[in-house]
Amino acid sequence: MDLASIGGMVLGLVLVVWGIMSGGSAIGDFIDTGSIVIVIGGGFAGTIVAFPLSATTGFGKVFAKSIKPNDFKTNEIIGKVIDLANVARREGLLALEEAVNDIQDDFLQKGVMLIVDGTDPELVKNILETELGSLQDRHAAGKGYFDTLGSLMPAFGMIGTLIGLVAMLKNLSDPSSIGPAMAVALLTTFYGSLFANLFWIPLGQKLGVNSAEEQLIRQVMIEGLLSIQAGENPRIIEEKLKAFLPPSVRQTIGTQEGEGEE
Amino acid sequence: MDLASIGGMVLGLVLVVWGIMSGGSAIGDFIDTGSIVIVIGGGFAGTIVAFPLSATTGFGKVFAKSIKPNDFKTNEIIGKVIDLANVARREGLLALEEAVNDIQDDFLQKGVMLIVDGTDPELVKNILETELGSLQDRHAAGKGYFDTLGSLMPAFGMIGTLIGLVAMLKNLSDPSSIGPAMAVALLTTFYGSLFANLFWIPLGQKLGVNSAEEQLIRQVMIEGLLSIQAGENPRIIEEKLKAFLPPSVRQTIGTQEGEGEE
Amino acid sequence: MDLASIGGMVLGLVLVVWGIMSGGSAIGDFIDTGSIVIVIGGGFAGTIVAFPLSATTGFGKVFAKSIKPNDFKTNEIIGKVIDLANVARREGLLALEEAVNDIQDDFLQKGVMLIVDGTDPELVKNILETELGSLQDRHAAGKGYFDTLGSLMPAFGMIGTLIGLVAMLKNLSDPSSIGPAMAVALLTTFYGSLFANLFWIPLGQKLGVNSAEEQLIRQVMIEGLLSIQAGENPRIIEEKLKAFLPPSVRQTIGTQEGEGEE
Amino acid sequence: MDLASIGGMVLGLVLVVWGIMSGGSAIGDFIDTGSIVIVIGGGFAGTIVAFPLSATTGFGKVFAKSIKPNDFKTNEIIGKVIDLANVARREGLLALEEAVNDIQDDFLQKGVMLIVDGTDPELVKNILETELGSLQDRHAAGKGYFDTLGSLMPAFGMIGTLIGLVAMLKNLSDPSSIGPAMAVALLTTFYGSLFANLFWIPLGQKLGVNSAEEQLIRQVMIEGLLSIQAGENPRIIEEKLKAFLPPSVRQTIGTQEGEGEE
Amino acid sequence: MDLASIGGMVLGLVLVVWGIMSGGSAIGDFIDTGSIVIVIGGGFAGTIVAFPLSATTGFGKVFAKSIKPNDFKTNEIIGKVIDLANVARREGLLALEEAVNDIQDDFLQKGVMLIVDGTDPELVKNILETELGSLQDRHAAGKGYFDTLGSLMPAFGMIGTLIGLVAMLKNLSDPSSIGPAMAVALLTTFYGSLFANLFWIPLGQKLGVNSAEEQLIRQVMIEGLLSIQAGENPRIIEEKLKAFLPPSVRQTIGTQEGEGEE
Repeated sequence: MDLASIGGMVLGLVLVVWGIMSGGSAIGDFIDTGSIVIVIGGGFAGTIVAFPLSATTGFGKVFAKSIKPNDFKTNEIIGKVIDLANVARREGLLALEEAVNDIQDDFLQKGVMLIVDGTDPELVKNILETELGSLQDRHAAGKGYFDTLGSLMPAFGMIGTLIGLVAMLKNLSDPSSIGPAMAVALLTTFYGSLFANLFWIPLGQKLGVNSAEEQLIRQVMIEGLLSIQAGENPRIIEEKLKAFLPPSVRQTIGTQEGEGEE
Repeated sequence: MDLASIGGMVLGLVLVVWGIMSGGSAIGDFIDTGSIVIVIGGGFAGTIVAFPLSATTGFGKVFAKSIKPNDFKTNEIIGKVIDLANVARREGLLALEEAVNDIQDDFLQKGVMLIVDGTDPELVKNILETELGSLQDRHAAGKGYFDTLGSLMPAFGMIGTLIGLVAMLKNLSDPSSIGPAMAVALLTTFYGSLFANLFWIPLGQKLGVNSAEEQLIRQVMIEGLLSIQAGENPRIIEEKLKAFLPPSVRQTIGTQEGEGEE
Repeated sequence: MDLASIGGMVLGLVLVVWGIMSGGSAIGDFIDTGSIVIVIGGGFAGTIVAFPLSATTGFGKVFAKSIKPNDFKTNEIIGKVIDLANVARREGLLALEEAVNDIQDDFLQKGVMLIVDGTDPELVKNILETELGSLQDRHAAGKGYFDTLGSLMPAFGMIGTLIGLVAMLKNLSDPSSIGPAMAVALLTTFYGSLFANLFWIPLGQKLGVNSAEEQLIRQVMIEGLLSIQAGENPRIIEEKLKAFLPPSVRQTIGTQEGEGEE
Repeated sequence: MDLASIGGMVLGLVLVVWGIMSGGSAIGDFIDTGSIVIVIGGGFAGTIVAFPLSATTGFGKVFAKSIKPNDFKTNEIIGKVIDLANVARREGLLALEEAVNDIQDDFLQKGVMLIVDGTDPELVKNILETELGSLQDRHAAGKGYFDTLGSLMPAFGMIGTLIGLVAMLKNLSDPSSIGPAMAVALLTTFYGSLFANLFWIPLGQKLGVNSAEEQLIRQVMIEGLLSIQAGENPRIIEEKLKAFLPPSVRQTIGTQEGEGEE
Repeated sequence: MDLASIGGMVLGLVLVVWGIMSGGSAIGDFIDTGSIVIVIGGGFAGTIVAFPLSATTGFGKVFAKSIKPNDFKTNEIIGKVIDLANVARREGLLALEEAVNDIQDDFLQKGVMLIVDGTDPELVKNILETELGSLQDRHAAGKGYFDTLGSLMPAFGMIGTLIGLVAMLKNLSDPSSIGPAMAVALLTTFYGSLFANLFWIPLGQKLGVNSAEEQLIRQVMIEGLLSIQAGENPRIIEEKLKAFLPPSVRQTIGTQEGEGEE
């Protein structure tokens, strides 16, 4: 399982803590609850303004999705589509009905059912592509939430620092308090920068990468399903779908297709 | 009712006030009428330059729109379109005339009337899509007003701070006044940053999100209307339109369509 | 007449002057001819580098265009097109020749003359769209000049401030001169920021808004002219063109079309 | 001849020198060979990394191109195309062979030769458009080199300033050296900003403007050549090509076309 | 061999070292292991979060690719395609089978084999373009990794500086330590800026340039292969493919084609 996202976040935090301690400071000097509340609270407040409530209530689900890797195995799915093509070739499109239950992916399953139902090819394409476009929009909205957090947290970090600076400048009577006061004022900028650059911006990017990968898979499925419906030769379908893969991964399909063919 | 935008703005302001007070400052130290006037006035002045007068006079309406949620219920509208498809299927396109009055959405109503009038399908599509494009332009202009405010208020915040710094530097004779003078100078930057990041930028984004949602709905309507006019099977229309929805919302339509069919 | 741009610039300048005076400074402290020359001169110098000489010599004309509103009246023009459609319908395309002289807009006039000359519809479309594209390019170039000024003036403001800072740091012998020297150094940043955010950036945006509006009108004209040439029903043409307008403006056309029809 | 680019650069440098001297500083205070080497050297080092070696060795040629104006005379070229159309109309496409030698532009010449050779119109279009696309890619690469210099020189300016600041902070023992040391440290930022905003960014933009202009001319040529090959009426070709020009320039063609026609 | 990337990086580092030493500082003052660890470690940590694990494990390969030049020789490849066209013309498509083994490029080889196998032209185009699109996606992902490093390293540089500043401000008791402490704090910003602007940003750009070049070659191959399959005249194919090249390189093909023809 690919835990890169969690690993990267842990690595980043460990490095920051190590950086603080190796400089001889106490971790406690860098923890200020009020500053954390302003940066996280302010960042979320602005983001809540920018999105419908459902985006905020669904944040946990998108967050969970951002830190876990896509578990799509492109080569397995191409293998599956080629198996289906072989079944359809040998026993006709109706024979796919039995195969439907073995398919775990909802999108592929729906496509196969549309074919089994004898839906017009143009309509199959229209429905699957609309669904893909709609998936893409939902993914983009999820990514947008993270991107907004990533831009607003540093902004509220700066707002927090301005609050601290103004407070300090209004009370310059005690020179010995200037240093510590400025240190605290800078903490919100520190938090805003850290949270944005270690969490929100990279996680938003990860959501984009995952979304692109999922869309590629879905396009492979649509291409494969339409080819099956058109009664194309499984060998040609394999050739077509393998073109979506990097050369290094293509080898892994040959055998599966071989098995499907026998 | 989805009050996320208002809630987010209130939450942000409460956090900022709490942040000021928890740092031991008086709220009064952070209120400076002149600074507020320069930031808000200057931001609006630049924005007024950038848009036709009508955009400024219509600002209140767009603002009201930005803080209230879209009340489109996609599933209800798809249900409605399927009902219309059933009526058209059973009783002919002319029978839709009676149904027109039950439709509350102007766009859908206009589309149905075009169909009832026997308008050429190509022309129906042309008219509805032109209207959609024109709606999109108006939405983008509204969002542009907010985005401009969001970029000019921090700019005038910095201009205000420069005014304060220059004034202070010209009169360094009294060292005790330096701190408070700089504090006041920083307030315009603080206001510009706060207003932009809590109000204008998020609200501009919200307008974009709402606009995208409304356009999706309109596309569903156009797709549905053209299918009705083409005499397609209501079940197929349902299949087509449901592809625009996230899987989780699709269930809610089945029953309505069932009712419509009986 | 819509004087929003001039009004906005005046409002912004008044606010800045008021901000300076309300802070107890003399306006004279904020006026430094050398700084103004560096910011405006440097900004224009860089912009002159970036564009052909003709863009600089034509700057005055584009500036004049940016501060005055578009005087297109979309509803009047749609009314005019529908009148032409009625004439063509009743008396044939050749009858439009007489109407040509009443048309004040060059683009519309040229289109009508092409139709009267019996030009092939495909060619009419080709010529009018090429002209529209060419107009769009010229508008974009004009807007580009303003955008470049808006990005280079703050840059030369910073360059001016760096010059001032270096000069000051080289001669720290007299501590009492530090404050005033820094004040003067900051003035170029102040000018660069003010000129960019009150004049060039908003005026560039205004040119973009005006250009979009003019292009919409031209598209309405092309759509209308092609429909007239195709001999479409004036009522249908009206329906098509009204779809370009916001619902609130549509009412104003009905009567004119009514008059045209009788 | 249009020497706007050189004039603008000279004007900018004169203003900066004047700004330095009018502030009472010596020009010598602003010249530091080491700083210049770091900013220019570092900026080019990073840019060399980003491009194939040939882009760096060809820099001089692109630079020369950026400071001299396009010498395309659109109206002359349109006149030329119309002359060719008249020849082709009167004497047939083969008669263009003699005219080929009078054509100074390689692209137009190649197009005419393709026509004379009886090349299939689809292929003529394909070849000329591929060549245009390839020209566009080369122009974009040249512009990219300037844009990269324009973004890396300020970056190395900041890197130079950081080097100066760190050096100064490490040796605070002699307070009297702080000012001059900071002054020198700031010089790299000054150079980076000046070179980027007076040279690289505007010259990159100029290359873009010139490229757009050249592409427009090439499109006019392609449009004209295809029309000639299709045997269209020279008067119609003129009408088509003039639509690419601003109204103010169109007049200048009429006479030439008249001459061509007689 | 084109070693511009390595040369540029070495040049940049030499200049920075020279800049440090010419200012009289010791190189040792600019080396701080902890700072380097935070900037590089933090930058990679965030980037690891943003991409699937495979992107991080494959980083070395992409890095190697970014610093070595493309070894595509466009003119040789065009010559090769024309040779193939001559073979196909003289001896039929099947005769290409023997030529396949001489082709070193996998993509071109695959295309020729598809043709030899008698694959439908539409399918050949579909497969090769899918493969090209998929290559483009992989290249963009590799470039994305570098761009992310280039944006996160300066961010972690700033985070490191904030850590240093906060630590320093908390302990202002010993004034003599302020300078050195700030110097160290600034080092992370220095590293972040240097690494981003000398390595990641230019190398990311280089990957983009290389990718564009490779895609152009692939498009030339696709165009050539489809023309061969369509049985087009080798001379015409040459004309078509040469249009992809800059005029200066075109000469080098003539001879090869001549050899192929005899």
